[in-house]
Amino acid sequence: MKLTSEQKQEIAEQQAQKYETKRVTSPELEKILYEAIPVLDHGFVRVIDYMGDDTSIVQSARVSYGKGTKKVSTDEGLIKYLMRHWHSTPFEMCEIKYHVKLPIFIARQWIRHRTANVNEYSARYSILDKEFYIPSKEQLSAQSTINRQGRGDLITGDQANEVLKILKDDATRTYDNYEKMLNEKFDGTTIDKDKKGLARELARMNLTLNSYTQWYWKTDLLNLLNFLFLRADKHAQFEIRAYAEVMLETVKKWVPITHAAFLDYRVGAVHVSAKGKKVIQLMAQGKKISFEDSNLSKREWNELMTSFDFAEKIV
Amino acid sequence: MKLTSEQKQEIAEQQAQKYETKRVTSPELEKILYEAIPVLDHGFVRVIDYMGDDTSIVQSARVSYGKGTKKVSTDEGLIKYLMRHWHSTPFEMCEIKYHVKLPIFIARQWIRHRTANVNEYSARYSILDKEFYIPSKEQLSAQSTINRQGRGDLITGDQANEVLKILKDDATRTYDNYEKMLNEKFDGTTIDKDKKGLARELARMNLTLNSYTQWYWKTDLLNLLNFLFLRADKHAQFEIRAYAEVMLETVKKWVPITHAAFLDYRVGAVHVSAKGKKVIQLMAQGKKISFEDSNLSKREWNELMTSFDFAEKIV
Amino acid sequence: MKLTSEQKQEIAEQQAQKYETKRVTSPELEKILYEAIPVLDHGFVRVIDYMGDDTSIVQSARVSYGKGTKKVSTDEGLIKYLMRHWHSTPFEMCEIKYHVKLPIFIARQWIRHRTANVNEYSARYSILDKEFYIPSKEQLSAQSTINRQGRGDLITGDQANEVLKILKDDATRTYDNYEKMLNEKFDGTTIDKDKKGLARELARMNLTLNSYTQWYWKTDLLNLLNFLFLRADKHAQFEIRAYAEVMLETVKKWVPITHAAFLDYRVGAVHVSAKGKKVIQLMAQGKKISFEDSNLSKREWNELMTSFDFAEKIV
Amino acid sequence: MKLTSEQKQEIAEQQAQKYETKRVTSPELEKILYEAIPVLDHGFVRVIDYMGDDTSIVQSARVSYGKGTKKVSTDEGLIKYLMRHWHSTPFEMCEIKYHVKLPIFIARQWIRHRTANVNEYSARYSILDKEFYIPSKEQLSAQSTINRQGRGDLITGDQANEVLKILKDDATRTYDNYEKMLNEKFDGTTIDKDKKGLARELARMNLTLNSYTQWYWKTDLLNLLNFLFLRADKHAQFEIRAYAEVMLETVKKWVPITHAAFLDYRVGAVHVSAKGKKVIQLMAQGKKISFEDSNLSKREWNELMTSFDFAEKIV
Repeated sequence: MKLTSEQKQEIAEQQAQKYETKRVTSPELEKILYEAIPVLDHGFVRVIDYMGDDTSIVQSARVSYGKGTKKVSTDEGLIKYLMRHWHSTPFEMCEIKYHVKLPIFIARQWIRHRTANVNEYSARYSILDKEFYIPSKEQLSAQSTINRQGRGDLITGDQANEVLKILKDDATRTYDNYEKMLNEKFDGTTIDKDKKGLARELARMNLTLNSYTQWYWKTDLLNLLNFLFLRADKHAQFEIRAYAEVMLETVKKWVPITHAAFLDYRVGAVHVSAKGKKVIQLMAQGKKISFEDSNLSKREWNELMTSFDFAEKIV
Repeated sequence: MKLTSEQKQEIAEQQAQKYETKRVTSPELEKILYEAIPVLDHGFVRVIDYMGDDTSIVQSARVSYGKGTKKVSTDEGLIKYLMRHWHSTPFEMCEIKYHVKLPIFIARQWIRHRTANVNEYSARYSILDKEFYIPSKEQLSAQSTINRQGRGDLITGDQANEVLKILKDDATRTYDNYEKMLNEKFDGTTIDKDKKGLARELARMNLTLNSYTQWYWKTDLLNLLNFLFLRADKHAQFEIRAYAEVMLETVKKWVPITHAAFLDYRVGAVHVSAKGKKVIQLMAQGKKISFEDSNLSKREWNELMTSFDFAEKIV
Repeated sequence: MKLTSEQKQEIAEQQAQKYETKRVTSPELEKILYEAIPVLDHGFVRVIDYMGDDTSIVQSARVSYGKGTKKVSTDEGLIKYLMRHWHSTPFEMCEIKYHVKLPIFIARQWIRHRTANVNEYSARYSILDKEFYIPSKEQLSAQSTINRQGRGDLITGDQANEVLKILKDDATRTYDNYEKMLNEKFDGTTIDKDKKGLARELARMNLTLNSYTQWYWKTDLLNLLNFLFLRADKHAQFEIRAYAEVMLETVKKWVPITHAAFLDYRVGAVHVSAKGKKVIQLMAQGKKISFEDSNLSKREWNELMTSFDFAEKIV
Repeated sequence: MKLTSEQKQEIAEQQAQKYETKRVTSPELEKILYEAIPVLDHGFVRVIDYMGDDTSIVQSARVSYGKGTKKVSTDEGLIKYLMRHWHSTPFEMCEIKYHVKLPIFIARQWIRHRTANVNEYSARYSILDKEFYIPSKEQLSAQSTINRQGRGDLITGDQANEVLKILKDDATRTYDNYEKMLNEKFDGTTIDKDKKGLARELARMNLTLNSYTQWYWKTDLLNLLNFLFLRADKHAQFEIRAYAEVMLETVKKWVPITHAAFLDYRVGAVHVSAKGKKVIQLMAQGKKISFEDSNLSKREWNELMTSFDFAEKIV
């Protein structure tokens, strides 16, 4: 992640702000406000603003005139209850705004979460930064042979070097040609004063999908947790998970009670189908139950055993 | 509006809060934070929390690293431009949360604005306050004879007294019977210790639609302005307009530049159809144009003349 | 449920419609299209229109040029997979529209599901029907003593009669006064030709919350299933559950494969928290685990035992 | 636009479908159902399904038991009224589903319209087609010098050839390298049997933004009109406008009355600010009003004059 000195200066100025407010504040989140937390090779996540804290959830659930309660233990009990029973509206009462820099192919996954407000850097209007995501060698995985939507073994040796060379060369060449068509360098200098530049809204089409873009992204706590549930999960693509994990840490600082309840009732939870429930019932009663008797498909059986870390998987 | 001493105390405690924050603040809005602003006979609007100010709109539109700009004049120009050209996403970057007490029949109109977060006081769970909306004599209008969805002349004299008596008596009686069925007074005292009380989720059905409810209502600035455009308008029902007008004043305190642009480009603006445009073009060129030549319906013609305060209406 | 002869005629005309279409159709749903299925004492649910069927889900998930597949077994496997793994977007590709008549206090619960399109009968514009919901004696429950948001034992005998009398009398009286203030009967006849009538938007406030309203309600299959998951559940208020159960039957006719997957992976499923998972793991391994060792709250322990129909509840 | 023979066959089969339905149908739209209407060099728009027609809007607005009315003239009057007065919910009662093939940089603009359901072809799961958008020479515009977000004069001659060569070469090379990294051709043949292929979710990042993707996109009529208002407008980028214009024609076939009202009250309409209204009032009264006296900014003045095709622009 490279920030220009001007950008560093702007961030430092924001961090130096001190205002007095009657609004509730989240002291731990305040500490990292505006900070650019690095993600991947050139990306970042910055918390820009927030509204509410754990007590706001309680306050709204109770439709109270004042703060939720004055006792943390009571607040905690209610928040856990709300999370366990899938109450949604109280968690919508907290809001957060991020500034994120991320590769375009990840932005395209991310934007599918519709219940958020977004302002993206416009490549119709401005020139994109000369930055592309190149995976580290630890992330250079082959296509999975068992999961059509996942990664398998690492690619190593010459083939790995070849892949990395392709990614770097192609991104660099297409970017250089982007500048050439624009007749303008990314720093704003004109290349050939006797030529016009192609319209920005056209030239951008030559960039590769690992080019970095950036946006302001604002959402409420409920939708943020839904996003993190899917994107901080091990089935999510590594590159978006990297962002989700950083954001999950910001949630911990912001609303620690809600964060703990989220880990217990969502992230670490298991969802068992009606048929799967019968299998678990028999097992808990000490009865033998085999895949053949389970009425589950092989895939369902294995997913059930995996979710409880039971050994009885079949091939 | 009656607040219990406990409620007053809770509000006073919130107003006495002083926290330090790095977030942007809106000084004028801070002054009235948590205050219960009276609306109608027993309702109120309270601003509970907010996120962002005018500079946040500029910051997001520019996807900048720091604040929008340092010059207010530049910010103002951009906000006016965004409003004029119907840019929506930058205005979604500010968020506000209200606590509102309002009659149920107004709550039913209000809730049709879906892009908001709501936590309403639950009459399945708790007993509603003994408060109903009774219109003032100045609001006791007859059905309009020209607009099937509006009010006409005032009802006065004996008939007005009769209407007010009906409204008071019916609301009081149904509320008394609500308590009777619950076997519990609104202050929590049991009526007959040897009887059970009807389930709250059932008993509430006996209440009239002018009973007061309350909710936390949170939305972003764009959707708030859409709400206010429709509900602070003279075609809106008086009772919801009373809330909208109070809220419009909170917008003025919160984001004064946006508020001014909203008045100019939305509230005071005129929308002219393609056919209406031809009429205006001819008029501006000093040509005579009559209804008969306008290709407009009588209703459209009159709406057009009214919107520009022109006298050429027809009957 | 009373329909006027004019309404019956209109419905019969729709049911007699026969058009040719290239769109996919759902033969079982076609059979009951437009039919008014009775709910509660005066309500109904009518399916007015729909778009897509089970194959549309498969088609969208595959982004295929033609129908999903030609083999029902393959479609079924994919739909089950999508449901099990919480894929949401393919289920959004089917849409349904209902015409519903329902008591206002239930309409207020229902409308909290925001991701739907609604057109409600306007009591600003028209006079509401003279119909109110009066519970049957089997539904006249006392407030639950263990669940602040539920029903307990039945109220019987004189107290039941008294409750029913209150509900009928108050609804009738407030409706009669509604007509009186309007100076107009529900059938449109003027009461006193020398008087004006109060504006409809005002007079309606005198009605009780068990008055019936009606609306067109349109949503996609995903959001319909979310609605039914919450509202066809035994914790939902009986009155809204009555509607949800009728609608669940229409889903079975419309998209039978999705309906079956919904029962298995949602309605009959169990959600186990991270802490609860440890308890189940020990039980399945034949180990004794008591509440005291479980790290669960008493409430959580009992909910876990109940969800698996295990006997080990504690008091 | 190239369709494989298998795709053509699938489309032909859908077009040959004939079902009987009681639902309303739109005869003109039925005629082009499933047809791939070409857009740009390799894209298309296909209408896959729809729900409702003009009468559905009337039916919902009236919350009627049968069809809207039986008289087309009455329906037309109501639809025009609803459009003129910004009633939104009745237009939400019609739904349409498209299958669209489009360049990724256009998909990124398009997806910002959030109130729609989308299933996109997954490049995590499958290999993208070897097709990229290359603008025609008539579209090869230079960056506008007066509008930072638009196109200016055409680029011609050698420079045009050079731009086209860059776009073709870079898209081809990055696609070839995409296949190389995947170790698999777009037709599914393995390149080197002794090598693994890079995970698809990674390899895709090497593609350029003019690569074609495809999706199912479903929305209601209100949101479709909002989309078309912005994207069929002359300020929209040419490439997305090409799609919007084709879609606008499908709206004309589907709901002709609504389409006509949309052209009159939206597409051809003029929005005049409060300050602008005063200028128009004076002009219509035959009074001279100069920019200096108008209280408008130069930009506003020119926008106002342009919107009415008045000559009084200033430099």
